[in-house]
Amino acid sequence: MDKRIGIIGVGLIGGSLGLALKRAGIETVGYDRSSRARKEADHCVAGFTDSARELAAAADVVVIACPLEGCREVWLEIKGFEHKVITDVLSTKRTIIDTARNVFGTVPPGFVPGHPIAGTELSGAAHARANLFDRRKVFLTPLADTAKTAVETVSAMWRAVGAEIVQIGIEEHDRILATTSHLPHALAYTLVHYVFCSVEKKKILDCTGGGFRDFSRIAESSPEMWCDICLDNRKNLLAAVAGFRESLAGLADALEKNDGDALRRFFECAAAYKKQSKNHSS
Amino acid sequence: MDKRIGIIGVGLIGGSLGLALKRAGIETVGYDRSSRARKEADHCVAGFTDSARELAAAADVVVIACPLEGCREVWLEIKGFEHKVITDVLSTKRTIIDTARNVFGTVPPGFVPGHPIAGTELSGAAHARANLFDRRKVFLTPLADTAKTAVETVSAMWRAVGAEIVQIGIEEHDRILATTSHLPHALAYTLVHYVFCSVEKKKILDCTGGGFRDFSRIAESSPEMWCDICLDNRKNLLAAVAGFRESLAGLADALEKNDGDALRRFFECAAAYKKQSKNHSS
Repeated sequence: MDKRIGIIGVGLIGGSLGLALKRAGIETVGYDRSSRARKEADHCVAGFTDSARELAAAADVVVIACPLEGCREVWLEIKGFEHKVITDVLSTKRTIIDTARNVFGTVPPGFVPGHPIAGTELSGAAHARANLFDRRKVFLTPLADTAKTAVETVSAMWRAVGAEIVQIGIEEHDRILATTSHLPHALAYTLVHYVFCSVEKKKILDCTGGGFRDFSRIAESSPEMWCDICLDNRKNLLAAVAGFRESLAGLADALEKNDGDALRRFFECAAAYKKQSKNHSS
Repeated sequence: MDKRIGIIGVGLIGGSLGLALKRAGIETVGYDRSSRARKEADHCVAGFTDSARELAAAADVVVIACPLEGCREVWLEIKGFEHKVITDVLSTKRTIIDTARNVFGTVPPGFVPGHPIAGTELSGAAHARANLFDRRKVFLTPLADTAKTAVETVSAMWRAVGAEIVQIGIEEHDRILATTSHLPHALAYTLVHYVFCSVEKKKILDCTGGGFRDFSRIAESSPEMWCDICLDNRKNLLAAVAGFRESLAGLADALEKNDGDALRRFFECAAAYKKQSKNHSS
């Protein structure tokens, strides 16, 4: 791929993308409004520009990898370069598309909304890894007017760093992610919240084992970022929370009635899931 | 430690204990009613007896490491050897103590109920590891009549395999574990159940990312074992589920009202937890 990729926002995802592109021999350039972030990501990109605007001028493909709350500012800064191929990495697609429409009057045909299903509970380029996207899925949610060539370029970029492309609709993306990502994170935060509010908190901190440790690790993800994601996708997340609460009521009912058969059927669902997902991925 | 440890039930925990004791130069002997389990655990213990009774005769310390549903049968088989030092590894303490009282008329003073906070979602000695208990906590819940020397012997055994002893009351153990272990497992099963019942199941299986993968991995633990654990500790688990549902209602309320401040406060709990638990463990 003989294009120069410009990355706006060099945190965990932007920094890892830079490292992965370098590993693939693809030219990179970065920008981050935080000097601390630039310093941390020094090894991740070939160099930095002094502004998002300069980056948009210098790059063939612009990747918006800043947090959700910064995306409107980025659109304003790169105005005049919206004919370039542009993509993003945000976990929800609604706001980035709405703000683009708001800033440009229409969503630029070169903009291909994207979302790599990769990441850890750690933030910042200090934790960036060149292999973060290996065999991971990247969702692209092109609109009706999105240019086919732009979709092809963005797909080629992600494939070059080891990822696999899945094209789905915007609504479907936000609905599925509410279940597979936003709900699990919300549940992990809720468990830690519940324990933290409990009177036996100190004892519990002393005694955390396997299950709780996995949850509290998930809940170590950035609270600001997850707050923004959950609000941005609140309608879908509320629907997922409602569905989960219904399932949880079923579990509580089986426990209440001391109904071993119902409980076993409930738990065996997971074994069935494991089997299906293994068949599915093979 | 110059005692011979007999392990009844050589699955993941029993097998790992065998390996860890061997690593510490301590003599072992095993028994399992399943010939397949004996075969899998061949490398975990020095040898096998043909019955639990023979094992109890040959060992100085008896470790009951079979599933919950097998514990009554074990007590019956080792009757006559209840004066020996005996411990167990079960996740809930109520049933093993009740069945001992039922079989012997009184809980033998040499029996020290125990529970190592270690394990993975994998079952069976094929996954056993000598380092499974390194720096892990082991709960001992001695009764008023439990012999101090028995507690000392069992503590020495666990320390020899790298674990740290915590003595707490039986009720407290079951209440805390309901929150830190049984609730997280129940939630993981519930999430998989919810997804599995969803109309978009197939799409979701295609698209699982970080959060869901962690949950579904937890829910790969043996459904039978977790069903038994949850039923055995159902009162405490129901209380934990009720508390969690209250916290979840708070989260849903903040989402419903689009209340960013409330949501942020909720999520920041986890950061506060992280800080406290780090101070706590240092």
